Amino acid sequence: MVIPAGGDEPGRLTEDELVAELRLLLAEDAPGVVLGPGDDAALVELGDRQGVLTTDLMVEGVHFLRETVTAADLGYKALVVNVSDVAAMGGSPRFALVSLGLPSDVEAPWVVELYGGLRAAAAEYATAIVGGDTSRADRIVISIAVVGEVMPGGAILRSGATPGDAVVVTGSLGASAGGLVLSRADAHVVAQAVSDGWGRELLDAHFRPTARVGEGQTLAGRGATAMMDVSDGLSLDLSRLCRESGVGAIVHLTEVPVAAGLTQLADVAPVDPVRLALEGGEDYELLATMPVDRVAGATDLLSERFGTALTVIGEVREGEGLVARDRDGAELPLEPRGWDHFGR
Amino acid sequence: MVIPAGGDEPGRLTEDELVAELRLLLAEDAPGVVLGPGDDAALVELGDRQGVLTTDLMVEGVHFLRETVTAADLGYKALVVNVSDVAAMGGSPRFALVSLGLPSDVEAPWVVELYGGLRAAAAEYATAIVGGDTSRADRIVISIAVVGEVMPGGAILRSGATPGDAVVVTGSLGASAGGLVLSRADAHVVAQAVSDGWGRELLDAHFRPTARVGEGQTLAGRGATAMMDVSDGLSLDLSRLCRESGVGAIVHLTEVPVAAGLTQLADVAPVDPVRLALEGGEDYELLATMPVDRVAGATDLLSERFGTALTVIGEVREGEGLVARDRDGAELPLEPRGWDHFGR
Repeated sequence: MVIPAGGDEPGRLTEDELVAELRLLLAEDAPGVVLGPGDDAALVELGDRQGVLTTDLMVEGVHFLRETVTAADLGYKALVVNVSDVAAMGGSPRFALVSLGLPSDVEAPWVVELYGGLRAAAAEYATAIVGGDTSRADRIVISIAVVGEVMPGGAILRSGATPGDAVVVTGSLGASAGGLVLSRADAHVVAQAVSDGWGRELLDAHFRPTARVGEGQTLAGRGATAMMDVSDGLSLDLSRLCRESGVGAIVHLTEVPVAAGLTQLADVAPVDPVRLALEGGEDYELLATMPVDRVAGATDLLSERFGTALTVIGEVREGEGLVARDRDGAELPLEPRGWDHFGR
Repeated sequence: MVIPAGGDEPGRLTEDELVAELRLLLAEDAPGVVLGPGDDAALVELGDRQGVLTTDLMVEGVHFLRETVTAADLGYKALVVNVSDVAAMGGSPRFALVSLGLPSDVEAPWVVELYGGLRAAAAEYATAIVGGDTSRADRIVISIAVVGEVMPGGAILRSGATPGDAVVVTGSLGASAGGLVLSRADAHVVAQAVSDGWGRELLDAHFRPTARVGEGQTLAGRGATAMMDVSDGLSLDLSRLCRESGVGAIVHLTEVPVAAGLTQLADVAPVDPVRLALEGGEDYELLATMPVDRVAGATDLLSERFGTALTVIGEVREGEGLVARDRDGAELPLEPRGWDHFGR
């Protein structure tokens, strides 16, 4: 077997390359497996239901720095990112397993605070933490697995996008990346931003993200043909959705819903709001495709039920790859850039 | 809230203390939760079935050294230890999620070999690997979650032991710990031991352990009142079972099935075979309690179906704590010693 080299060095793989390799190694047609690796979550037969299974690994120094996040926020977010994967299938989260690797300098109150955040997210998303494992480790490791449910046939995969479908996204993008940038700014800049209002919104988006569970179920029931959550950046995630569906897409840059506080952030930090929205990642908004004539109904329902915006940002096309159309109507290739846990 | 201090330093917890604390923080009566944290696995309602959920975290430097284990063996064992937790409930493993934290010096062929071991175990135990996550990390981290099934009411918990029950164990104990000791001996000692036959058996017990899935289901159907797998050492694990059941137990030291190769090992390494059997851990044999009059039937069935021995090693008593009866009939407290991922 030939292993493709990725990144800068031979033998090193990007995350997408590694996932692609590992998929080849796994039998996807095992009994009871409706959908194997490669989507937001797996689908399996469990009695008369379909189970939605997902897991996420967070490592200190890679996904977070202990000094810059509270244990409560860390626990909250660790669960939400898994719940978001279930939401992206149109499913309901039910149960969670939480495994912790803890360095010897982490004391019990920190762990209790972490569990406070985990419990808050569990309560928010009606997900019961039913077990886990603990171990010593050099760095903090948080590994969570969530088991959710969906009605058989009701899950929305990444692979169903059809040429002509509208590309839609919930909420706005870039706030989490903006919050990360802001959190690293000078203390007086952060204080002023919070006092002005926009700073709190960006910080919350980064440290206490929202999973779109109700929105995912609504979109699943109202015509979504493909769906995923925006965890690694819009351009990278949309390129994955298109690849799974065997299609391309055009993105209208002027239509991408840029998070509100990013304009103010750009006044105090060297950031490009549109680029943060396209590549920032960790938004946990839902990215979906649907027939154009279903968009209005879904938009009304999301607004009515959840107060959540749905924005058409482009269109699915034949072929492959992403194209960005700018303000002047010029079309340029849109590079799938974003968070790659191996590329950085 | 007061956090009990454990181990040698204030604020440090033993694994059991930490697990006990975390259990208090979790709502065990959430909808659909049949059994929350604290047993080998959690039980949840999933449609018309009960799901058996378990997870296990393995960290380089804590659970294994990269230099002393092949990637294939590591992958194999990582899945087996989770399957064993499902077996210990009397359940059937079905699906697995595999998360990997990988340092930058781990190359793709190593990961592919790891997956070879994972797939071998998955095939052995009819468990489909349906997804996972990957991340950079300083040390190798392997986090696996397994979803199994059991018929409603069919699971055997740790909490059902009743005074008068026999304490039984499958197979023999101490081989895995013996294999670990042997693997660290001089190369010529290892070569001779393997050539003599007994060495291979000990090494296999450590690097390619067996989960007792069929045996667990058989014991569940033939009268087991409590059951768990021996992962951290017989004395520590039995003390946990007794604590959950609110009982004590007496162990007849002469009846503990000491693994065959340990006598030979004691000739070439400073080990006490009985102590390895009592405290060695990672045996993944099943430890169960059952009414005395059910033992003969279960023993015959295990022998007939799987060629697996079942040995009565003691008896459940009123009260608490473990007592060991030695060859001369003297009774002494049996200290619950074994592998504590925080205590060492």
